Amino acid sequence: MTKPRVNHQFYMQRALELAAQGRFSTHPNPMVGCVIVANGEIVGEGWHQRAGEPHAEVHALRQAGERARGATAYVTLEPCSHFGRTPPCADALINAGLKCVVVAMQDPNPQVSGEGIARLQAQGIDVKVGVLEQDARRLNSGFVSRMQRKRPWVRVKMAASLDGRTALANGASQWVTSSDVRNDVHRWRAQSGAILSTAETVLADQAQLTARHQQAVLQPLRVIIDSRGLLTGEEVVFSNTAPILLVHAPDTQRSVESAARWPEHVQVVTVERTQTGHIDLTELLHTLAAREVNSVWTECGAQLAGALIEAELVDELIVYLAPKLMGHTAHGLLHLPPFEAMSQVPELKFTDVRLVADALRIVAVPHRVRGDILS
Amino acid sequence: MTKPRVNHQFYMQRALELAAQGRFSTHPNPMVGCVIVANGEIVGEGWHQRAGEPHAEVHALRQAGERARGATAYVTLEPCSHFGRTPPCADALINAGLKCVVVAMQDPNPQVSGEGIARLQAQGIDVKVGVLEQDARRLNSGFVSRMQRKRPWVRVKMAASLDGRTALANGASQWVTSSDVRNDVHRWRAQSGAILSTAETVLADQAQLTARHQQAVLQPLRVIIDSRGLLTGEEVVFSNTAPILLVHAPDTQRSVESAARWPEHVQVVTVERTQTGHIDLTELLHTLAAREVNSVWTECGAQLAGALIEAELVDELIVYLAPKLMGHTAHGLLHLPPFEAMSQVPELKFTDVRLVADALRIVAVPHRVRGDILS
Repeated sequence: MTKPRVNHQFYMQRALELAAQGRFSTHPNPMVGCVIVANGEIVGEGWHQRAGEPHAEVHALRQAGERARGATAYVTLEPCSHFGRTPPCADALINAGLKCVVVAMQDPNPQVSGEGIARLQAQGIDVKVGVLEQDARRLNSGFVSRMQRKRPWVRVKMAASLDGRTALANGASQWVTSSDVRNDVHRWRAQSGAILSTAETVLADQAQLTARHQQAVLQPLRVIIDSRGLLTGEEVVFSNTAPILLVHAPDTQRSVESAARWPEHVQVVTVERTQTGHIDLTELLHTLAAREVNSVWTECGAQLAGALIEAELVDELIVYLAPKLMGHTAHGLLHLPPFEAMSQVPELKFTDVRLVADALRIVAVPHRVRGDILS
Repeated sequence: MTKPRVNHQFYMQRALELAAQGRFSTHPNPMVGCVIVANGEIVGEGWHQRAGEPHAEVHALRQAGERARGATAYVTLEPCSHFGRTPPCADALINAGLKCVVVAMQDPNPQVSGEGIARLQAQGIDVKVGVLEQDARRLNSGFVSRMQRKRPWVRVKMAASLDGRTALANGASQWVTSSDVRNDVHRWRAQSGAILSTAETVLADQAQLTARHQQAVLQPLRVIIDSRGLLTGEEVVFSNTAPILLVHAPDTQRSVESAARWPEHVQVVTVERTQTGHIDLTELLHTLAAREVNSVWTECGAQLAGALIEAELVDELIVYLAPKLMGHTAHGLLHLPPFEAMSQVPELKFTDVRLVADALRIVAVPHRVRGDILS
């Protein structure tokens, strides 16, 4: 007795697991997994490993060989129908003689969405769309965001004591000393297309803004807002040659101590200020999307974090709470405008809570941003 | 094939479950459960329900009847050996002909600890002590604290936004509106011997400080610190006739508007000030222990919570974090003295984290207090 519905989910779940193996390496491409099933048996598996290299379907078809004929393919993303750096996967599935293709989600790129499915159907292949669609969209939140909103998925990291404080009044803050928390942060960084920070944070923390994790394959683009022209090119962040994007305002005065020109791995972009005088963060994010950044991880202070929240540009907050109490004189977690009523306050939903060593890691999603592209 | 060690834990676990049924009703007595096992079969179960009523052993022996002869009794607390409001349970066990008695923990009262066990052993009963002892001590943390430290177990409740803020700059704080969180709070209150608050909180919140929960059997003693003499007797807290203990300093000036004398359910105690000018909280807790308060639940603001933490009088913090962000202009969670270095900051251990509806409930134990009486 077959239970087609249950089996579809079972195999798609496996395809999603395969896809997720690309979380450190596939961006700016989406993560994609593929499973080929013949007579109730998995005969081929594949996942997309790196931009420019074969897509998931190709790996799975190679493994399946002749057994792909008349089989069912499970793909976490609609097979592509265009010649990019590799030939269209829809054609590969057609040529291999697949009878049925189950797709978790359509291509989020509005310009090609549905074309791969149409191409398969035109060849008489039975196509089913929408199995575990929400999981598939969540897995590729960054790619989906870039395609549909023309901006990256934004994760704002914060770290504080249980009472929401980040540093003592005198500035001391050596509390994020747990190597487990740092390792967790570097794991997030290693999955991000860019790390967004400020000149102030870079100077205060002597930050490198790199992903130092055993699974790091690609280094994120380091994006540093320096509207006041504080950086000289001599800071430790410049010593690593991974790319840096310096963000200036039109009126930014270059520091007089800075070198005659920036090192080769540094590029400068100019972003307008908003009426409040701050860099236009929406414009900056559009700029990053145009550079194929799927997801942004912030390493910043209470000011930028607050500005991103106020501009409703935050998709996820990742808050590490250390098991400490620092009291009312210590620095606060988040600069927000003074609210007049509780009804004005940003609301969240806690989506994941776990212990990372002795600290608590809370993932929260702002209500006003959530759901528009992932459901 | 018998596995005595495993069976001991199995039956003691059951006895602890029975004991815990008394969490709303037995204080100031300890919670105690008893299981009688004959030939691998449970023939009697009991738990102590209310002070003045029969102890756990008596209930279990009644149920077991003649089958208690030659059987094994599992008791979560050393059987008493003295005549109190009921006859000694050790004698009841002896008279029933028990062959073996397994005890989770000795009586924490240093004046009688070990006497019940000695009484049983003197009659040739095989006594085993220490099975699931830590669980038994934790279950009765309040009673153990009162007996061994001469002060109640202190739980400090706090509620804040994710960024550690309790009210907007203008005072608005209607955010703890989730009825699930309020219900959870009232469940804690209903298990507490006293609720500790301040005149300031009573006035600001129009607080009643009662336990309004379907399982509430006993109303906690309401302890209100009013060193400035702000209360008049007309506040809503006085309309309920459950007992109130008003805490004054020696120099407290009675409010001129206050009634000629307090209502009958109100008692006034005077507690000295410390050098800092605040009520001596250690002395106050000793006073409460002398009144048989096992556990204290606080309903207070950042000042008293901070003072309790600073004095190292907090056994557990219960922090509700609402899924909101209030920003740096909002009121902070905790008043603590300014620290010069992170090494001075109070450290905690997170012991329980769960969602209560849309809020996060975090239980944390201060390092400096933990462990001294429960392990």
